[in-house]
Amino acid sequence: VRCEVIAVGTELLLGQIVDTNSAWIGEQLALAGIDAHYQTRVGDNQQRIVTALRVALERADAVIVCGGLGPTQDDITRAAIAEVMGVEMEHDANVEIRIRERFAARGREMPRNNLRQAQIPVGGKPIPQMPGTAPGLQCPIGDQVIYAVPGVPWELREMVTGTIVADLRRRAGASTQIRSRILRTWGYSESKLAELLAPRITALESFGNPTIAFLASGIEGLKIRITAKAAEEHAAAALLGEEERQIRTILGDNIFGCDEQTMESVIIDLLRERGMTLAVAESLTGGLVATRITDVAGASDVFHGSLTAYASAVKFELLELPRGPVVTSQAAEAMAQGVRRLLGADVGLATTGVAGPSSQEGQQPGTVFIGLAWTQGVDSRCVRLAGSRRLIRELTVISLLDFLRRELIAAPDANG
Amino acid sequence: VRCEVIAVGTELLLGQIVDTNSAWIGEQLALAGIDAHYQTRVGDNQQRIVTALRVALERADAVIVCGGLGPTQDDITRAAIAEVMGVEMEHDANVEIRIRERFAARGREMPRNNLRQAQIPVGGKPIPQMPGTAPGLQCPIGDQVIYAVPGVPWELREMVTGTIVADLRRRAGASTQIRSRILRTWGYSESKLAELLAPRITALESFGNPTIAFLASGIEGLKIRITAKAAEEHAAAALLGEEERQIRTILGDNIFGCDEQTMESVIIDLLRERGMTLAVAESLTGGLVATRITDVAGASDVFHGSLTAYASAVKFELLELPRGPVVTSQAAEAMAQGVRRLLGADVGLATTGVAGPSSQEGQQPGTVFIGLAWTQGVDSRCVRLAGSRRLIRELTVISLLDFLRRELIAAPDANG
Repeated sequence: VRCEVIAVGTELLLGQIVDTNSAWIGEQLALAGIDAHYQTRVGDNQQRIVTALRVALERADAVIVCGGLGPTQDDITRAAIAEVMGVEMEHDANVEIRIRERFAARGREMPRNNLRQAQIPVGGKPIPQMPGTAPGLQCPIGDQVIYAVPGVPWELREMVTGTIVADLRRRAGASTQIRSRILRTWGYSESKLAELLAPRITALESFGNPTIAFLASGIEGLKIRITAKAAEEHAAAALLGEEERQIRTILGDNIFGCDEQTMESVIIDLLRERGMTLAVAESLTGGLVATRITDVAGASDVFHGSLTAYASAVKFELLELPRGPVVTSQAAEAMAQGVRRLLGADVGLATTGVAGPSSQEGQQPGTVFIGLAWTQGVDSRCVRLAGSRRLIRELTVISLLDFLRRELIAAPDANG
Repeated sequence: VRCEVIAVGTELLLGQIVDTNSAWIGEQLALAGIDAHYQTRVGDNQQRIVTALRVALERADAVIVCGGLGPTQDDITRAAIAEVMGVEMEHDANVEIRIRERFAARGREMPRNNLRQAQIPVGGKPIPQMPGTAPGLQCPIGDQVIYAVPGVPWELREMVTGTIVADLRRRAGASTQIRSRILRTWGYSESKLAELLAPRITALESFGNPTIAFLASGIEGLKIRITAKAAEEHAAAALLGEEERQIRTILGDNIFGCDEQTMESVIIDLLRERGMTLAVAESLTGGLVATRITDVAGASDVFHGSLTAYASAVKFELLELPRGPVVTSQAAEAMAQGVRRLLGADVGLATTGVAGPSSQEGQQPGTVFIGLAWTQGVDSRCVRLAGSRRLIRELTVISLLDFLRRELIAAPDANG
């Protein structure tokens, strides 16, 4: 079964709202093994909604249309579906009762406008779940079907998981299971990854299952997505597991995490295992290292804190940095030692460099030094990054944490 | 001129990434007065990208296709465009040189894979802006045109604003000017804003121009967007200006900024005007206040730094907080005083509270204390916030900075 998703709303086209509903529905369809090849966004215009529905029905067996089911005159999804079905709308007395009940439950009377929501294309029927005041619809057209759900996320989610996915799976008969896994890497560029994995990609291409794709995601790392299809869930999982094993053999320690694991959560876990604590001194990252670390629930187990030393005086006085240039390897190392001592942690990390837009101490934007001080000594690296001020700061964070990750893995008994 | 947007990437369909690029492009097209009636998302599949391009070209004069221009084998947008144009691809030696230069600037050699990016459909040409290593394309098809831009946000943004919007406006001849302005507010809820502005909204409804919309945007504040249309730019600007004046009369100091002004940039400007410097002590925000402040270029004029005091020991020892509970008004005030002294700044700010998911010191998640210490004395507030761990942290940052903003406005000569 192929199912397309159409999101209705002029505010989506104007960029006033980002369409997160389609992404969420896409994920549910993928997990249910339903092919979803296209998603469309269209404004609150009946003729264009009709066009979008017709284009989708030429390519797919089912369409989920999302939004435009409210009580106002802009809400024309119902009328567009009736036009595509070639039928009139009729008043559904049971739906009217349910809408009135929803208002009554909140101690309010139903405004007259909401009567529009009880109008249903002839041949269609309401979706049983109705968490808000907007009824969803299921409207058959021959062997095909249009589902309509409101644009309010928690309302549509209940309808999609409660009715639509099950109905699509029933239509599909025994359907294919699709499973995917993301391996997160740091250390290789996207093209280098592609080069290293080319033999795997070529080997997989003849089967077309599983597939591999790359995704550069800034501070989230460079992701490799493996997607596998099979008749049964365990078979899809086995395909994923085997492909993951192959890729890990090729990339080794460059893979830092899987699926929801971030560089920060991995670092926190590694430190916790070793019973070690962490402190950070930040210059160009300005607090972003600390923000990312403390975004992980449970960070307080290992994280003592951080000093954002933005003014040079703070570097000299609190971190006891020797007076002189601050965008150097030596400065990064001294900052790491200084913050380790100041905050009483086992590991001190530091960033200094040029985020831009202007140069500093004769160094170009993107020139960054990262420092590490711990039981095993003091060390630093110079990394050269490209991109906007924000991206340079983000890539500095992941480079710094990856530096520590590799050192922790290389010295498993560092605190022992 | 009608322009559609197609975002390419299987990860978009699978819901692994939310398509924010299309929203941003939609906004730019709207501001330039270019009609954009449909947006489509399609996976990394050449035949389906071709179908999406053909459907779009049946309805529109121009298409912006976004993503799939990287160096790997799943980057097939170039080939799909060539197929729609009915032409071969050819190697562009100048583009190759530019890609090699990009790598050389980072001290790296161009991997062989990146040669794919110098393949261009015959008749197409590269977009002049090329901030990353992926060239954009402009490919005419008769009177129509396909623009291709990479999926990396900062790369595509430079191409869209630098070339594509201007080219579309040139194609459109004289068109209606649409201008919008965003007033950023903090202090009132969305429903309270709607209530206060109801008379304006009613007054505007009969004309339909300008229009007003609300958008709750977390750490960016609660936004009011005014949109005006006119034949000439200055007339649209005059409509905007008049409506802004009306809204400012109603909301006063609750409006903290306009368009690109953030709470952080406003605070930095207010401090700079007064010749004052700032230091921050962070507990639950974990570095996020500092990150937001240092995201503004020029923050170093006023920002000394921040201490993320995540471990209680750091609060007691470095900030000289009296031992005892740390989620209190008194703790927030003592932290603000401590960091002001420690980092030698005119103004000290502090956050302490419970981000969740668990309670702390018997306080529920969302209970937050913000403190201020400066020439005018010491003060604090308790705010109660709802939402996820991340949202509570974000709302704490804007609440804290708004607290300082109102105090600075109330005491214009505080440093004098």
